[in-house]
Amino acid sequence: MKSILLPLTIMSALAMPTMANANDSVDKISIKNAHQLRDTALKAHLGFDIVESLTVEVGPRLAGTTADLVAVAWAEDKFKALGFDKIYKQPVEVRHWERGFAKASVVSPYPQPLAITALGDSVATPKGGLRGELVFFDSVDELRHSDPKDVKGKIVYIDARMHRHLEGKEYGTTVAGRSIGSSVASEKGAIGLMIRSVGTDSSRMPHTGNMNYQEGVKKIPAGAISTSDAMMLMAMKKRGKAITINMELETKAYKPKTSYNVIGEITGSKYPDEYILIGAHLDSWDEGTGALDDGAGVGIVMAAAHAIKQFNPKRTIRVVLFANEEGGLIGAKEYRKANAKELHKIKLAGESDFGARNIWRFDSQVHPDNLDVMAHINKVLKPLSINSGNNKAGGGPDVSILPEKGVPVFSLRQNGTDYFDYHHTPNDTLDKVNPTELAQNVAAWAVVAYIAAQADEKLLALPKKKTK
Amino acid sequence: MKSILLPLTIMSALAMPTMANANDSVDKISIKNAHQLRDTALKAHLGFDIVESLTVEVGPRLAGTTADLVAVAWAEDKFKALGFDKIYKQPVEVRHWERGFAKASVVSPYPQPLAITALGDSVATPKGGLRGELVFFDSVDELRHSDPKDVKGKIVYIDARMHRHLEGKEYGTTVAGRSIGSSVASEKGAIGLMIRSVGTDSSRMPHTGNMNYQEGVKKIPAGAISTSDAMMLMAMKKRGKAITINMELETKAYKPKTSYNVIGEITGSKYPDEYILIGAHLDSWDEGTGALDDGAGVGIVMAAAHAIKQFNPKRTIRVVLFANEEGGLIGAKEYRKANAKELHKIKLAGESDFGARNIWRFDSQVHPDNLDVMAHINKVLKPLSINSGNNKAGGGPDVSILPEKGVPVFSLRQNGTDYFDYHHTPNDTLDKVNPTELAQNVAAWAVVAYIAAQADEKLLALPKKKTK
Repeated sequence: MKSILLPLTIMSALAMPTMANANDSVDKISIKNAHQLRDTALKAHLGFDIVESLTVEVGPRLAGTTADLVAVAWAEDKFKALGFDKIYKQPVEVRHWERGFAKASVVSPYPQPLAITALGDSVATPKGGLRGELVFFDSVDELRHSDPKDVKGKIVYIDARMHRHLEGKEYGTTVAGRSIGSSVASEKGAIGLMIRSVGTDSSRMPHTGNMNYQEGVKKIPAGAISTSDAMMLMAMKKRGKAITINMELETKAYKPKTSYNVIGEITGSKYPDEYILIGAHLDSWDEGTGALDDGAGVGIVMAAAHAIKQFNPKRTIRVVLFANEEGGLIGAKEYRKANAKELHKIKLAGESDFGARNIWRFDSQVHPDNLDVMAHINKVLKPLSINSGNNKAGGGPDVSILPEKGVPVFSLRQNGTDYFDYHHTPNDTLDKVNPTELAQNVAAWAVVAYIAAQADEKLLALPKKKTK
Repeated sequence: MKSILLPLTIMSALAMPTMANANDSVDKISIKNAHQLRDTALKAHLGFDIVESLTVEVGPRLAGTTADLVAVAWAEDKFKALGFDKIYKQPVEVRHWERGFAKASVVSPYPQPLAITALGDSVATPKGGLRGELVFFDSVDELRHSDPKDVKGKIVYIDARMHRHLEGKEYGTTVAGRSIGSSVASEKGAIGLMIRSVGTDSSRMPHTGNMNYQEGVKKIPAGAISTSDAMMLMAMKKRGKAITINMELETKAYKPKTSYNVIGEITGSKYPDEYILIGAHLDSWDEGTGALDDGAGVGIVMAAAHAIKQFNPKRTIRVVLFANEEGGLIGAKEYRKANAKELHKIKLAGESDFGARNIWRFDSQVHPDNLDVMAHINKVLKPLSINSGNNKAGGGPDVSILPEKGVPVFSLRQNGTDYFDYHHTPNDTLDKVNPTELAQNVAAWAVVAYIAAQADEKLLALPKKKTK
């Protein structure tokens, strides 16, 4: 697997003309160290070893399950083994839902099995399954505008398609069928929901993921079939006969459990009370081993902080492994709440949570007065084939809720071309992680966090957004 | 998906210097027709439509199951709809074995699930599963040479790896663990067998396939884990602790059933009693829809014969859809037996059973006096980027047992680079069939069968092999 080079036209479209020049906000020795840090990290194997350790010794770690707490213990042990200065955890109340088996089949006109998985938080079907005629929609919007009498008593099928994209751009639009489809279908009188998996693969792996029942609607069972089954089903529909399916989803909801954000720090030598936060989420879906989502992120940020330790950073590097991202940023919300009075001490934050492929662009969202520091970072990232981007970074799912509190963030954007082939499937496993590409990630994260830690100018909170 | 062009070095290595020149054994009008037949078939969609019809309207069709008989009825109907002159079927007694669910997990030292499937014909495990410590081998040979006291009471794990290859070359050697591993393990006192899937993918799809218990050995349950799980397991082994697993395979053997070879003919206008046999197998494994194995073959040979019909062939084109190839050429053996006295009437035979990718080489195994006819075929195939090969063709699984009875055979060799990614997995589905590549196959099969049907020279039986 080789890195993907972007065509020049895209590269120039992304260049940020307003980016400030690098000045002496970062001392020359630190810049020299950053080069060395980058080149050493690029050759190291630690990032991959951490992902291997997590996926082999813990495996799937759905929030609320026993394995989730095994992962918490694993994280504390790993921070210790890597010599972090301060290790602690923060309790988070998480949902506890588990899946049993899932099966489905076309009952008529052409009986055959379908590969299906329950969506996260779906209620179970009756034992023996839920049987019903399918009613077809291309999107949740089309369903929303449908006549309830066409839907009542049937199983809604949504065939929203997602196409391959470097930045995974269609995820946000396609995912609506998964996240709110069951509520919209239920309001129209449907007895169940089945969707085409939100994924870019052409395979027999259904993609699970989070969904929410809106308050007041009857909870109906919801599952996703694989993209291969979706193609088969649409070819069957073309044949013009009504299609009846049976789907049996075994799921169980338990009482909420306590999980933890696990935090490890490399204490700063000059500004110990100022933090550069680099994060990932520790939880995963239950069917794969969470190697890409988000074992890779865990490996990247732990290994990056470990590499920085050798260079004795001025600010504190804080690695946060968030609990239960998949449940809807549950650990991140708790982190923000618990640290409400200290958020101004976080001088820059970012989360790695988009797989393990090469990074191709660096974006920031910082105070304009600090763009000179970003310019230093850009220069050191360039040999990694990472372009400078814009100052509108989101920062990654779990830190995306920090900028509204003034916390500056950054994004190291990964090639996501095949991320949604494996996302939330049993196929999210270690063999999808390329050690060379992962090392490029570790090098980039180390560079960003280290240079931000070394800047001798004040790192400012984001300016308040003007309200209209 | 584009066709793969072979490097020139390979192409010239394959060229057959001894190939005879084309002469007037085939008349000019027939050769002109062959060009037209080829070019029309290349633009047609019928081959793909047939695969779609079989996989959508029948789906999986394991020999002995109800779906197998649905496939037989489908084949008869399809031959009728395509206007074949003569349609009949031939009873075949087949094994009837079915799978239920399959699950496995590492119990210690690091509990996590494994994606597993039962091998075909495996006995079931006890309810709740079979628990045992794993003992690791790289191959069935290594197992054979092991000390029984290292194996006794344990579950044997064989980690034989198969690499990607244009011709699927490592299948024959790697498959031993699957086909006879359980017997060898049982003889050493093992309580179960688990193998790394015989496949070239890096995915979470276990590959099933046929196995045989040798007479007299205790039948022990046998399953295959996915290549992703195999990588995880080997990484776990590296950690140095004994590994205990639990595997639960639900399977059931029933009484033998009657299935059928289904045959359709386009009657020859000049030599109706001489046959060009083109075949595929109708049965499939149960977890995919058998699109590549062997729906594609079915689509290719049916569509090729249908295309030839418009050109009124001199010899009869006989399409044979064999029963239960997956059980060990069961339908083919019955075909040979039932037609024992008529085999000399088959002037050339071939089976398509290696997926749906482009053909890159034509091989034959014919009487040397008929190589001139093969030379005509080679000339017409050349624009399809098909090279001339050797005169040592096997002919394809089901016809491979005919040359020993004197029947000449041919092989149109497909690019098998990704065939073993999907082979015998749930992932063998229609989305893996590229209609353009399939049409190239149909065109090639039509050319071979048509030119062989038109040759005005005698097509001779293979010379008897000299016995030492």
